[in-house]
Amino acid sequence: MSVVAAVLYRDGKRVRDIDVTEKVHCPDDHSEFVWIGLLDPTPQDLRLLQDQYGLHPLAVEDAINGKQIPKVDVYRDQLFVTARTAELVEDKIHYGEILIFVGHSHIITVRHGHEREFSKLRGELEQKPSMLQNGVGYVLHAILDYIVDGYLPIIETIEEDTLAMERRTVDNFLGRDEIIRIFSLRRELIRFQRVLIPMGEVAAKFVRSELPCIDPDARPYFSDVNDHVRRVQAMAEALREVINSVFEFSNLLEQQRTGAITRQLAAWAAILAVPTAIAGIYGMNFRYMPELSWRYGYPLVLIVIVVICVLLFWRFRTLKWL
Amino acid sequence: MSVVAAVLYRDGKRVRDIDVTEKVHCPDDHSEFVWIGLLDPTPQDLRLLQDQYGLHPLAVEDAINGKQIPKVDVYRDQLFVTARTAELVEDKIHYGEILIFVGHSHIITVRHGHEREFSKLRGELEQKPSMLQNGVGYVLHAILDYIVDGYLPIIETIEEDTLAMERRTVDNFLGRDEIIRIFSLRRELIRFQRVLIPMGEVAAKFVRSELPCIDPDARPYFSDVNDHVRRVQAMAEALREVINSVFEFSNLLEQQRTGAITRQLAAWAAILAVPTAIAGIYGMNFRYMPELSWRYGYPLVLIVIVVICVLLFWRFRTLKWL
Amino acid sequence: MSVVAAVLYRDGKRVRDIDVTEKVHCPDDHSEFVWIGLLDPTPQDLRLLQDQYGLHPLAVEDAINGKQIPKVDVYRDQLFVTARTAELVEDKIHYGEILIFVGHSHIITVRHGHEREFSKLRGELEQKPSMLQNGVGYVLHAILDYIVDGYLPIIETIEEDTLAMERRTVDNFLGRDEIIRIFSLRRELIRFQRVLIPMGEVAAKFVRSELPCIDPDARPYFSDVNDHVRRVQAMAEALREVINSVFEFSNLLEQQRTGAITRQLAAWAAILAVPTAIAGIYGMNFRYMPELSWRYGYPLVLIVIVVICVLLFWRFRTLKWL
Amino acid sequence: MSVVAAVLYRDGKRVRDIDVTEKVHCPDDHSEFVWIGLLDPTPQDLRLLQDQYGLHPLAVEDAINGKQIPKVDVYRDQLFVTARTAELVEDKIHYGEILIFVGHSHIITVRHGHEREFSKLRGELEQKPSMLQNGVGYVLHAILDYIVDGYLPIIETIEEDTLAMERRTVDNFLGRDEIIRIFSLRRELIRFQRVLIPMGEVAAKFVRSELPCIDPDARPYFSDVNDHVRRVQAMAEALREVINSVFEFSNLLEQQRTGAITRQLAAWAAILAVPTAIAGIYGMNFRYMPELSWRYGYPLVLIVIVVICVLLFWRFRTLKWL
Amino acid sequence: MSVVAAVLYRDGKRVRDIDVTEKVHCPDDHSEFVWIGLLDPTPQDLRLLQDQYGLHPLAVEDAINGKQIPKVDVYRDQLFVTARTAELVEDKIHYGEILIFVGHSHIITVRHGHEREFSKLRGELEQKPSMLQNGVGYVLHAILDYIVDGYLPIIETIEEDTLAMERRTVDNFLGRDEIIRIFSLRRELIRFQRVLIPMGEVAAKFVRSELPCIDPDARPYFSDVNDHVRRVQAMAEALREVINSVFEFSNLLEQQRTGAITRQLAAWAAILAVPTAIAGIYGMNFRYMPELSWRYGYPLVLIVIVVICVLLFWRFRTLKWL
Ligand SMILES: [Mg+2]
Ligand SMILES: [Mg+2]
Ligand SMILES: [Mg+2]
Ligand SMILES: [Mg+2]
Ligand SMILES: [Mg+2]
Ligand SMILES: [Mg+2]
Ligand SMILES: [Mg+2]
Ligand SMILES: [Mg+2]
Ligand SMILES: [Mg+2]
Ligand SMILES: [Mg+2]
Ligand SMILES: [Mg+2]
Ligand SMILES: [Mg+2]
Ligand SMILES: [Mg+2]
Ligand SMILES: [Mg+2]
Ligand SMILES: [Mg+2]
Ligand SMILES: [Mg+2]
Ligand SMILES: [Mg+2]
Ligand SMILES: [Mg+2]
Ligand SMILES: [Mg+2]
Ligand SMILES: [Mg+2]
Ligand SMILES: [Mg+2]
Ligand SMILES: [Mg+2]
Ligand SMILES: [Mg+2]
Ligand SMILES: [Mg+2]
Ligand SMILES: [Mg+2]
Ligand SMILES: [Mg+2]
Ligand SMILES: [Mg+2]
Ligand SMILES: [Mg+2]
Ligand SMILES: [Mg+2]
Ligand SMILES: [Mg+2]
Ligand SMILES: [Mg+2]
Repeated sequence: MSVVAAVLYRDGKRVRDIDVTEKVHCPDDHSEFVWIGLLDPTPQDLRLLQDQYGLHPLAVEDAINGKQIPKVDVYRDQLFVTARTAELVEDKIHYGEILIFVGHSHIITVRHGHEREFSKLRGELEQKPSMLQNGVGYVLHAILDYIVDGYLPIIETIEEDTLAMERRTVDNFLGRDEIIRIFSLRRELIRFQRVLIPMGEVAAKFVRSELPCIDPDARPYFSDVNDHVRRVQAMAEALREVINSVFEFSNLLEQQRTGAITRQLAAWAAILAVPTAIAGIYGMNFRYMPELSWRYGYPLVLIVIVVICVLLFWRFRTLKWL
Repeated sequence: MSVVAAVLYRDGKRVRDIDVTEKVHCPDDHSEFVWIGLLDPTPQDLRLLQDQYGLHPLAVEDAINGKQIPKVDVYRDQLFVTARTAELVEDKIHYGEILIFVGHSHIITVRHGHEREFSKLRGELEQKPSMLQNGVGYVLHAILDYIVDGYLPIIETIEEDTLAMERRTVDNFLGRDEIIRIFSLRRELIRFQRVLIPMGEVAAKFVRSELPCIDPDARPYFSDVNDHVRRVQAMAEALREVINSVFEFSNLLEQQRTGAITRQLAAWAAILAVPTAIAGIYGMNFRYMPELSWRYGYPLVLIVIVVICVLLFWRFRTLKWL
Repeated sequence: MSVVAAVLYRDGKRVRDIDVTEKVHCPDDHSEFVWIGLLDPTPQDLRLLQDQYGLHPLAVEDAINGKQIPKVDVYRDQLFVTARTAELVEDKIHYGEILIFVGHSHIITVRHGHEREFSKLRGELEQKPSMLQNGVGYVLHAILDYIVDGYLPIIETIEEDTLAMERRTVDNFLGRDEIIRIFSLRRELIRFQRVLIPMGEVAAKFVRSELPCIDPDARPYFSDVNDHVRRVQAMAEALREVINSVFEFSNLLEQQRTGAITRQLAAWAAILAVPTAIAGIYGMNFRYMPELSWRYGYPLVLIVIVVICVLLFWRFRTLKWL
Repeated sequence: MSVVAAVLYRDGKRVRDIDVTEKVHCPDDHSEFVWIGLLDPTPQDLRLLQDQYGLHPLAVEDAINGKQIPKVDVYRDQLFVTARTAELVEDKIHYGEILIFVGHSHIITVRHGHEREFSKLRGELEQKPSMLQNGVGYVLHAILDYIVDGYLPIIETIEEDTLAMERRTVDNFLGRDEIIRIFSLRRELIRFQRVLIPMGEVAAKFVRSELPCIDPDARPYFSDVNDHVRRVQAMAEALREVINSVFEFSNLLEQQRTGAITRQLAAWAAILAVPTAIAGIYGMNFRYMPELSWRYGYPLVLIVIVVICVLLFWRFRTLKWL
Repeated sequence: MSVVAAVLYRDGKRVRDIDVTEKVHCPDDHSEFVWIGLLDPTPQDLRLLQDQYGLHPLAVEDAINGKQIPKVDVYRDQLFVTARTAELVEDKIHYGEILIFVGHSHIITVRHGHEREFSKLRGELEQKPSMLQNGVGYVLHAILDYIVDGYLPIIETIEEDTLAMERRTVDNFLGRDEIIRIFSLRRELIRFQRVLIPMGEVAAKFVRSELPCIDPDARPYFSDVNDHVRRVQAMAEALREVINSVFEFSNLLEQQRTGAITRQLAAWAAILAVPTAIAGIYGMNFRYMPELSWRYGYPLVLIVIVVICVLLFWRFRTLKWL
């Protein structure tokens, strides 16, 4: 079985490693609990734990299927919590899935995907027995806090990129590649927000409702997790507005530019039509065209052409078409 | 009568087939119930059952008329539930309608349209007497779960098609046929969401409210159905955003392209106006045009034309118009 | 006075016609009630009934002024209900107004406009004394049900027209007349939705709140009315989305078409500029232009022109501009 | 002091004018109250009344500062209500501010701006002692009703103008002045809605909450005020949709027109390029151009030109470009 | 330590400056409290106060990290409040952060950034012992009121600028710099609204919930703060609508102008094509062109050209293209 760690804790201190198939009897005073960490377990692994720890079949089914929206399910005196880890890899956010079974004397974490490890977190918690002795609720909080703390650098990186892109828009016009990149960043943001909203709801549920296995004194801690989710959410929303602004902005500038060029085109077309039309007239082959035999007919026509063109040019300048 | 099956169950086990016109007396301890399945029944069929099982006239009226939005109606100690099955056939989602009358000792399912059969479901349930002995609430859950499980493959197929289309947009411009297809997929999605929202409300109602005939222990099961609806809903929403993105995106690229072509058009018009205008001048028939008799007048003019054109070309290149 | 009918009912059966100025004493057990139907009454008519039946002055004021949004007002032990009938006449929905005063022993319906008559409804109800004997609440339900049943054919007619128009959009471009018609249909829909929403709230209020004069057993009946309103609402919303889709769609196709034509225009302009420019050159009157005296100068130039034009044409074909 | 009126009422009848600095002792049975009307009072005036009638300092501060959003503040057993009067002057809505201090035995109205006078209202109320004897709550209702009754003519005038403008759009294209006027009307509407929403909340608060100084029997009266606000709101919303429709509509027609003109332009450019190109060819000065010396060369070329132009014209007609 | 001030108050009067490391014992009757003001404290400073005043570790962590969304956290009998000050510097709003720890006998304010000082506020409060003697709740109110009072001038300045810009739009077309400035103002507004919403929630929480350390009589004061936030919010929303209007407006006018210029361009192109085409015809070198030898051929052609051009000009005038 893909067991990362399986440890019995008493009064916040590590007692010993256990075997997942072992039947551990914890006293009713919640002074002891078992924390099992699994990585990509098979359905068989989970069914085995189901019998051992009385996990609800629906929760086990969800843990086997995966692809759950973050949520908290209450099954009598047990909880089933699902959450999403996130990591930014080259403009794409990769998601991992964490499924947590919580009972009064056990907490089982199931991880799908390798995005972020928990062993460091376990080490840190074992350094603070005063927290750990408060039971499974604090372990659950620590995991959610750890997951949510991983969201901030992602949004900060996207923020930097987007703001840089925004500054460039003010000075330049957006190229095809930049449009594609912004669209892709926006999609990542929209997807991320779809994870953030239920994650916030998960944290808020621990703050608002009386849930089994969770010490009421732990509420401010879940409230703190909720705060951090809300902060990331606020940043994500702000970023979406920036991106939409960039589009609208670039749209407006592009439109203004097309308008200006249309006017320029119209002006030059008018100016250049003058020599063409006049020269066309004097290119006709009529026998009786007196101007053709004038001594200064040619320079006169040239002067007329230049004068009309200059007048037109000056007129269009005044209209700000040129 | 279009009876697909009509069976009496006791303690989760099949006792015998019954006749729908037969008056079955079930004990008050809910250990027995009757499950009747009808396909496209006539109003007469339904009125007959109305008398037999004390169905509410408004519920029967709805079952006759069909075209109901998914809902749960409570009539004293009976329930009337309507739901929608869905199936994807060549880019179109076909909907079927299921109407369910639930009493303490009976569950009557009425099916309009042939989209998905329930006989397989009945077979599966009869394999699990431990579930079936919990009564009509579990049968109802199994039906809703079965319906909702049919939603996922639909949304996954549309997702695949849409994402493929999106990838093509990045590389190409959308043709008329692709625009029509995306519009049609979007409409199917919008319609599907209109079914998903009340279906989720139906499931949520079983989780939140104390309803007659439903064992409170069955709540996590309905919560699970709700979860699955919510997941499909989340996917549908995400897809709509992708489709909107594809349009906006294709719009922006088209606009940028039109802008670029307008500039190119303006540039070439300016460049080509040069030989036309100059040649026009020297095509005039004035008697006294000294340049015409120069030995190298012609090549000189050609050189002047080429030089001006090249300068203009270079200038437009710099402006990124060409 | 514009009295359409004024009848005393006992135990669901018609007793006798009454005079509206007559003081009718009904027993307290709700076994008797008076149902008065008025058409376009004058303020004087209403003030007379106000004294007779203890109607609240604010309700009477509303009945005189008309133009009420559908609503339910509770005045001590009486109700005042306003509703809207609707009828489709040549692409326009005409609205009528119904104002209903309900007391324990009286129901007075005031109708403004002739859109749909109630006498047929009264006749039908008198055929079902078992319903009518339940009192004024059932008469009120029957009226609301009758009004709401009139909404469905309207939305179905608009739906048919809109879907037909949509199909034409896929094959053609929208003309000015079609744009005007769709805009007008959309406005009718928006206005209709403004009536549907408060009509649904009226029905919902009877389902949710304990209201005077209304038997709690009548709730499923009002819930049924609410369902029908919701169904029409769902159809109206779906239609608005179809109409918006038609616009967006026609917009996108128009834009694509303009883009395509701009490219075609640019391509032909470039191709046709070639003969013009080259012919212009050889139309110059320089004395020393060696090509002019070549034996095959003319066919050569023609060949050059054709070759360049064909090359350009082939190039634009490749770019899909032509 | 800018006292418009200050009167003591007993049992709904005017007793005598009082001096605002006078200490009036009213009995506890609410049979007497003082109604003071002020116009643009100075801070000193208000501070004086504050001591006399025990007004809350925050309410007095608001009355001095003005520019309050409509609201109801409860200070122990007193109320402080702020409202907005409105008047239409040449396409602009002018707002006035009314601030009302309500205690069991006093009602003080402070008016900023001269938009609509209350003396007429006081006169009318004094004609109905049966209402006035119910106390300050009815005076408050009368004032709010009077203010809200002033909203309807405003929205009706804007409605008329907008619908006239809409009809013109269907027949014509919008000019610059009309666009400016519609924009300005829309802004007035948006601002008006910002006043209507909190005004409705003020009325609703009197309907829903048990407030000091307000007789529960007065609730239907405030509900009636709320109804009238809601009706004006519904009209304002409908108007905004009409205006947005006018823009969208005019936008679509303008776009269609630009598309049509682009096509026409392209067609004529193509047609006129034919004589220019062919004539250019035969304007070349090659020595050996056999056609030039044909007897019927010239009429032949003219015929060729005309035929090609007619064919092109006919082709573009078929395409509906011309 | 960066202590700005640390003072012990008794019955609303300043007793003496204290040392932050000093253990001050206040009686349980809330007659005394300590008010400490810190500027940019180090984590060490805060940890020291944490031990002294029993601050919750999560609150201290937030005070160290900063960047909090405005909020109220309840930790047993203490409060932790975060808020944002704002200042407008050259079209940009600069934000400062205030973090406030409130206990029954202490209030500790932590300021990050120098935007607005509190010492003036402390001076003002010390002038009003009648308010100050009510305890820490009134100090907290005064701080929030002070912060919120700083919002109004910001929004008023932006309002003035925006309305000026709007007026210019009506008379002119927007230039690139103005578009950039409006976009930047809009972003500042959006960001500001993101601060206003949670600030309003903070104030509303004090009005609605029973919070530790806060005297229920202080509620109207927090309600007043909430009112002021709502007023600024209403102005911000109105401004955003104005800005959106300016864009839409400028968009519509630009589009109308492009349409008009397209029509003008098309008209002039048609008019100027006439002399070019006709002159081209008579510039052909056919031997047999009878018109060429007519005595008045040339002036006749000139007249024909002028007549056609004038007719076309007149036609386009009628169509309002010119
Ligand atoms: Mg599940
Ligand atoms: Mg759930
Ligand atoms: Mg954290
Ligand atoms: Mg933390
Ligand atoms: Mg999600
Ligand atoms: Mg939520
Ligand atoms: Mg925190
Ligand atoms: Mg029904
Ligand atoms: Mg399922
Ligand atoms: Mg399942
Ligand atoms: Mg639906
Ligand atoms: Mg619903
Ligand atoms: Mg009314
Ligand atoms: Mg009906
Ligand atoms: Mg019905
Ligand atoms: Mg309405
Ligand atoms: Mg309503
Ligand atoms: Mg509602
Ligand atoms: Mg229902
Ligand atoms: Mg105030
Ligand atoms: Mg309000
Ligand atoms: Mg009124
Ligand atoms: Mg009234
Ligand atoms: Mg306002
Ligand atoms: Mg509100
Ligand atoms: Mg009402
Ligand atoms: Mg919090
Ligand atoms: Mg303030
Ligand atoms: Mg203040
Ligand atoms: Mg925020
Ligand atoms: Mg307030």
